[in-house]
Amino acid sequence: MKAREIQIQNHMIKKKPYYLPVGDEVELFTAAYEAKIPVLLKGPTGTGKTRFVEYMAYMLGKQLKRKKGLPVITVACHEDLTTTDLVGKFLLKGEETVWMDGPLSTAVKKGGICYLDEIVEARKDTTVIIHPLADHRRILPVDKKGTVIEAHESFFLVISYNPGYQSIIKELKQSTKQRFIAINFDYPDKEKEAEIIAHESGVDKKTAADLARIGEKIRHIEGHALTEGASTRVLVYAGSLIKKGISARRACDVSITSLLTEEKEVRRAINEVISAVFPG
Amino acid sequence: MKAREIQIQNHMIKKKPYYLPVGDEVELFTAAYEAKIPVLLKGPTGTGKTRFVEYMAYMLGKQLKRKKGLPVITVACHEDLTTTDLVGKFLLKGEETVWMDGPLSTAVKKGGICYLDEIVEARKDTTVIIHPLADHRRILPVDKKGTVIEAHESFFLVISYNPGYQSIIKELKQSTKQRFIAINFDYPDKEKEAEIIAHESGVDKKTAADLARIGEKIRHIEGHALTEGASTRVLVYAGSLIKKGISARRACDVSITSLLTEEKEVRRAINEVISAVFPG
Amino acid sequence: MKAREIQIQNHMIKKKPYYLPVGDEVELFTAAYEAKIPVLLKGPTGTGKTRFVEYMAYMLGKQLKRKKGLPVITVACHEDLTTTDLVGKFLLKGEETVWMDGPLSTAVKKGGICYLDEIVEARKDTTVIIHPLADHRRILPVDKKGTVIEAHESFFLVISYNPGYQSIIKELKQSTKQRFIAINFDYPDKEKEAEIIAHESGVDKKTAADLARIGEKIRHIEGHALTEGASTRVLVYAGSLIKKGISARRACDVSITSLLTEEKEVRRAINEVISAVFPG
Amino acid sequence: MKAREIQIQNHMIKKKPYYLPVGDEVELFTAAYEAKIPVLLKGPTGTGKTRFVEYMAYMLGKQLKRKKGLPVITVACHEDLTTTDLVGKFLLKGEETVWMDGPLSTAVKKGGICYLDEIVEARKDTTVIIHPLADHRRILPVDKKGTVIEAHESFFLVISYNPGYQSIIKELKQSTKQRFIAINFDYPDKEKEAEIIAHESGVDKKTAADLARIGEKIRHIEGHALTEGASTRVLVYAGSLIKKGISARRACDVSITSLLTEEKEVRRAINEVISAVFPG
Amino acid sequence: MKAREIQIQNHMIKKKPYYLPVGDEVELFTAAYEAKIPVLLKGPTGTGKTRFVEYMAYMLGKQLKRKKGLPVITVACHEDLTTTDLVGKFLLKGEETVWMDGPLSTAVKKGGICYLDEIVEARKDTTVIIHPLADHRRILPVDKKGTVIEAHESFFLVISYNPGYQSIIKELKQSTKQRFIAINFDYPDKEKEAEIIAHESGVDKKTAADLARIGEKIRHIEGHALTEGASTRVLVYAGSLIKKGISARRACDVSITSLLTEEKEVRRAINEVISAVFPG
Amino acid sequence: MKAREIQIQNHMIKKKPYYLPVGDEVELFTAAYEAKIPVLLKGPTGTGKTRFVEYMAYMLGKQLKRKKGLPVITVACHEDLTTTDLVGKFLLKGEETVWMDGPLSTAVKKGGICYLDEIVEARKDTTVIIHPLADHRRILPVDKKGTVIEAHESFFLVISYNPGYQSIIKELKQSTKQRFIAINFDYPDKEKEAEIIAHESGVDKKTAADLARIGEKIRHIEGHALTEGASTRVLVYAGSLIKKGISARRACDVSITSLLTEEKEVRRAINEVISAVFPG
Repeated sequence: MKAREIQIQNHMIKKKPYYLPVGDEVELFTAAYEAKIPVLLKGPTGTGKTRFVEYMAYMLGKQLKRKKGLPVITVACHEDLTTTDLVGKFLLKGEETVWMDGPLSTAVKKGGICYLDEIVEARKDTTVIIHPLADHRRILPVDKKGTVIEAHESFFLVISYNPGYQSIIKELKQSTKQRFIAINFDYPDKEKEAEIIAHESGVDKKTAADLARIGEKIRHIEGHALTEGASTRVLVYAGSLIKKGISARRACDVSITSLLTEEKEVRRAINEVISAVFPG
Repeated sequence: MKAREIQIQNHMIKKKPYYLPVGDEVELFTAAYEAKIPVLLKGPTGTGKTRFVEYMAYMLGKQLKRKKGLPVITVACHEDLTTTDLVGKFLLKGEETVWMDGPLSTAVKKGGICYLDEIVEARKDTTVIIHPLADHRRILPVDKKGTVIEAHESFFLVISYNPGYQSIIKELKQSTKQRFIAINFDYPDKEKEAEIIAHESGVDKKTAADLARIGEKIRHIEGHALTEGASTRVLVYAGSLIKKGISARRACDVSITSLLTEEKEVRRAINEVISAVFPG
Repeated sequence: MKAREIQIQNHMIKKKPYYLPVGDEVELFTAAYEAKIPVLLKGPTGTGKTRFVEYMAYMLGKQLKRKKGLPVITVACHEDLTTTDLVGKFLLKGEETVWMDGPLSTAVKKGGICYLDEIVEARKDTTVIIHPLADHRRILPVDKKGTVIEAHESFFLVISYNPGYQSIIKELKQSTKQRFIAINFDYPDKEKEAEIIAHESGVDKKTAADLARIGEKIRHIEGHALTEGASTRVLVYAGSLIKKGISARRACDVSITSLLTEEKEVRRAINEVISAVFPG
Repeated sequence: MKAREIQIQNHMIKKKPYYLPVGDEVELFTAAYEAKIPVLLKGPTGTGKTRFVEYMAYMLGKQLKRKKGLPVITVACHEDLTTTDLVGKFLLKGEETVWMDGPLSTAVKKGGICYLDEIVEARKDTTVIIHPLADHRRILPVDKKGTVIEAHESFFLVISYNPGYQSIIKELKQSTKQRFIAINFDYPDKEKEAEIIAHESGVDKKTAADLARIGEKIRHIEGHALTEGASTRVLVYAGSLIKKGISARRACDVSITSLLTEEKEVRRAINEVISAVFPG
Repeated sequence: MKAREIQIQNHMIKKKPYYLPVGDEVELFTAAYEAKIPVLLKGPTGTGKTRFVEYMAYMLGKQLKRKKGLPVITVACHEDLTTTDLVGKFLLKGEETVWMDGPLSTAVKKGGICYLDEIVEARKDTTVIIHPLADHRRILPVDKKGTVIEAHESFFLVISYNPGYQSIIKELKQSTKQRFIAINFDYPDKEKEAEIIAHESGVDKKTAADLARIGEKIRHIEGHALTEGASTRVLVYAGSLIKKGISARRACDVSITSLLTEEKEVRRAINEVISAVFPG
Repeated sequence: MKAREIQIQNHMIKKKPYYLPVGDEVELFTAAYEAKIPVLLKGPTGTGKTRFVEYMAYMLGKQLKRKKGLPVITVACHEDLTTTDLVGKFLLKGEETVWMDGPLSTAVKKGGICYLDEIVEARKDTTVIIHPLADHRRILPVDKKGTVIEAHESFFLVISYNPGYQSIIKELKQSTKQRFIAINFDYPDKEKEAEIIAHESGVDKKTAADLARIGEKIRHIEGHALTEGASTRVLVYAGSLIKKGISARRACDVSITSLLTEEKEVRRAINEVISAVFPG
């Protein structure tokens, strides 16, 4: 039962994550971290936002010369996520009642990055609980305990947001947004993406470049018929299957075409892109 | 009370399930399993997706030379299924509180396939909980305990999805989809289907072929008026009733016609198909 | 507190229920029972579906030469019925926690028919819980306990469904339907219905025939203006009131006309039918 | 704590309620009671349905020569009323758990009338729980305890229903309706109503007749603009205020006009009716 | 813990509330109180309904020569208010379970006025729970305890209702309304209102008259563009600010204009009214 | 466990907050505080409403010569905030039950400002609970305990409201609004805003003036295409990033453009404003 506390050491990034910067995101994140301005990462799925946060935690941890590095606690937000899940609750332990901090209050107390992934998916109370943390006050009121926690020196708040998903119902309020600076994420350029694909899937450079070409071309279709383009991740998946002996066409089929859409017209367009690159 | 733990041995596939491959699904599944890329099975009801997963668990278990085989824990998802149901919860046991893992955390810890059938039916939190399991991290955060479980070497995530059912409300998000490769499932061809019907229901080859013919023809009607065609399963049911002495026409009536639709026009079309094959 | 278990002997059908077969429903049910194919009973209210199930339980019990007969556990499904209600839950008993099986798990364990009346009314999780019970697996996963129950040899699943009620929202999914065969229920013909009315209400044969005639005629109006016709049950009610000294016209008025509709036009049509049969 | 049981003697009708029959409702109710056919009372508010049930309980109690009479347990149904509220639940009493029957199970066990007023307002599970009680089975399954109660000899089920209120959403299902006979309730005729007003409010016969005249005339407006006419109750209220010294016009104003509608046109029509009768 | 009971002495009106009658409301309320007919107060916000109830409690308390006066328990109803909140519930106290009456059952038992302010805002079950209290029965069933409380001699039920707010969804049912008489509340005339403003805010008679003039004029705009006019309360607020040294124009601005509407056109109209009265 | 009480000293404003008055808001707030009239602060996000409340608490605390100052308890309201969260609840502590006051009841008892930020976001019960606190009664009924708290001499209620957000569903009721006076908040003029930016971010006066100019110009676009203009806060953020070495254009890009809108046309307009001011 003593395990009912978030083990902060579980959240240390022990080895340097593989991450290829695509612009000035490292400089912006560092400046914001130093100025204690919370960061909002904007961009489509599979462009490396999560890994970027892990990378920055690792790099800033080094820079800060903290013995144990800078932990990063990631919360994948969803419709039923409440303030209580983030801040903590009382649990019954035999005849005693035990308090258990949530991921957010743990980071606020012990320091480190708290990354709320797709916060707009969570229940509305969660977007409000971060307001006093995200402005000059840097405090977290813990209503259930009647206390207020002042944020640790190294506490840093990061949230993400996928503009492609947002509807009128699921939109961040201006009073939330205007507490953050926004760093945009987009797909890397062809050369960088090929480098990533080769590194992650183990395919040869030629195949990696071919897959990157497919990614780029599909993203041009996107504006017209796809809600979202092929992410770098699905290109890596295609590469991995090729590496395991599946033919390039079939690998692209199950990793890309089948996933992106159910519409026949669009599928045909995607297939044309693929067969132009892998004619065989 | 000691029984409050998922008995993993209950989930071993002890004898080889009867499964006739219809394409390269065995190779794709094997490659994905080896590359640790989660798999999404797409296709209509009654085309053997569940049995395919059991078959692969059996085959991979053999191949891995695991003494006890590879368990498969199936969860039929529904509207009220929450993260807690999958990941685990605390139970009160007299004066003690006991943790009980859910089906997902059991598979993550002990290894084996976790098959989330029709995951899109579940509450939204469940589709998000699998994100860190389904990418490079392969971890499962257990919020209630404040811990993070690293997936067992042999843990493998499979989900299914019936495109015929999906609406705008119940649709997998791109950020979920793009963590999987998709293997399509469809009805087997006439010869294979006849073989399955004969094997499963015990009818003679001629009757099995007749039933397979009916299946194929009804699926042609489908595009126009039926939401879904007659599955292999209902053809097997018709065969079983014939075997028990019910006339072929009546067996098809209660297994196929009455189930597929309430619309009179479509029923007439189905009946014509049946009486063409079983004129008596 | 020891009473917190479903008493299976409460569910034995001790004497032969009065039931007049209207077609081959007895043969179909018997064949399905033997082939272990679950049965879906389709038809309007008051046509004897519940009594048919009780009758079959009695008859199959005899045939099986089970000493104690075949129990039938009926569950009237409703909007708030959950999986937990069917499968069981933990109850607090003083300082102990006691497991209590639900009606479904009781039948799965101890054998007998489980009849889920109007299952489509229940919450969606309940229609999914029966999937592994209703296919080749014949198992019931008990999530709360982490166990899986293999169905008793004599366990048999029956559900009912009233097509007149179904809307797009409340519709069985194809993946549920295609696990059953469907036996249709309809109103008996005039002669059989008169026999039932006479037997159940105690009126003389002439009056019973008159009431059956009224039933038949009203069902012809139905297609146009009534959501559902007069069931055999309301005709029996009318007979019972006549037997108690209420005039035939007034008995039909309170048992039939007032119940079937609020629309004046339709009421006039019903009244004409009644006064043609009972002119006095 | 011993008081946690429904005190059946609280529900005896000790003195004969004042009730003036308006048709054959007494005979119909008696015949239905003897034939054990449940009764549905249909009609607008304030026409004496509740008092009629109390009157019949008193009269049948006498007739049955039961020493203690026939109790009547009334439940005013509402949106949040659940099966548990009707059937019973377990309560924690110190370290023990105590079962407490609900109003319905109390009447089923101990006998008497259970009157579910406006049952259509309750949650859907409650309309289903009465099905096995309202047909030939006369049983009440108590899911929470795993038992089935057979209804007491004198148990009788009465429900009410106001057709003016019903919408498509709040409508009794045919499978519920066809388990009842329906007795219609309407406003009494002018003479009877004057007699009631005089008796209940204590005003003189002339004033009572004037108020009854107003009631009758307003009900003629109703068809056009009012959802419901002035009930006998509001006419009694007007009489009571007159008796306390309020002028007849003002008494009608606050008891009738202000309550029935907010629409000016309709108010003017009502006022004209009132000032024609009470010109002063 | 002994404090878990409603302290009835907290609800005594110790000194005569300042209240200026505007019509025959005192006589009507008194007559209804004596005839035990529940009262519904209808009218816009800020017209003194709450204070009128306190005034009547004080006056009737005097008249009744009760030593301790007549208590008034006010409940501001809201969307989440349930029957349980009004009637009472069991609380856990260490190892014991303690019953705690709600505001309504306290008044029913101990006597006094129970004032349910804007009852239509509450959940539907609350409007039904008052039915047997509001007719000839004068009883309150306490389902949770299985008992029925007969109302104290001096118990009196008052509810309020703002017709300007009601929508089809939030409307009192006729079966509720017709259990009450309705007393209408409206803004006082200019002279009376000036007297109230002067008394409550302490401004001189001239300023009070000016403010009353503004109130009257704004209410003429109302019919066209405002959902509700300026209440007496906001005029008193303006007076209070003037008394504290804020200029009359600015005081009206923050008390009246800024509150009543966001629409520019209407604001201009209100400002014209104000600057006509306070030209400086 | 003893910590389960709100620590009022946590809510003292220990040092004078930096606040530049923009109009007569200090005088109005002071007059309202003295006249005990609750205050509603109206205006867009990031205009310093929260800091103004802290400033007034500090100033009034000085003025009152209270040794410990005037505490301010801020509650960021959200969709799931209930009365219980504000007023308090019982908690189980081992075998005892302990009452814990909420933020509102704490301020009511011990004195100080309770600031309910964006109250309209909270559940409806919370807007009703403040009614008796916000009128002449100045009381808070604590239903759960059956008591009524009279407000401390120095208790003062402040709420905020952003008119840009309100929809028909989320609107304060007139009966709530008319219990407050409204003080409007808007963006400060260019000179004041430059002063604030320089003070808060540490940039030089020239850059601060440039940023203030950008703010002003963007607010002119607002009326047409933006739901809300750039707040003072985002201008301060831009300043802070510039101070950390990010170029002025890039700083404005991530602090302003990326946050305010997703629409390309509007972004272009904003960019033109920025590049006119920072041409480099």
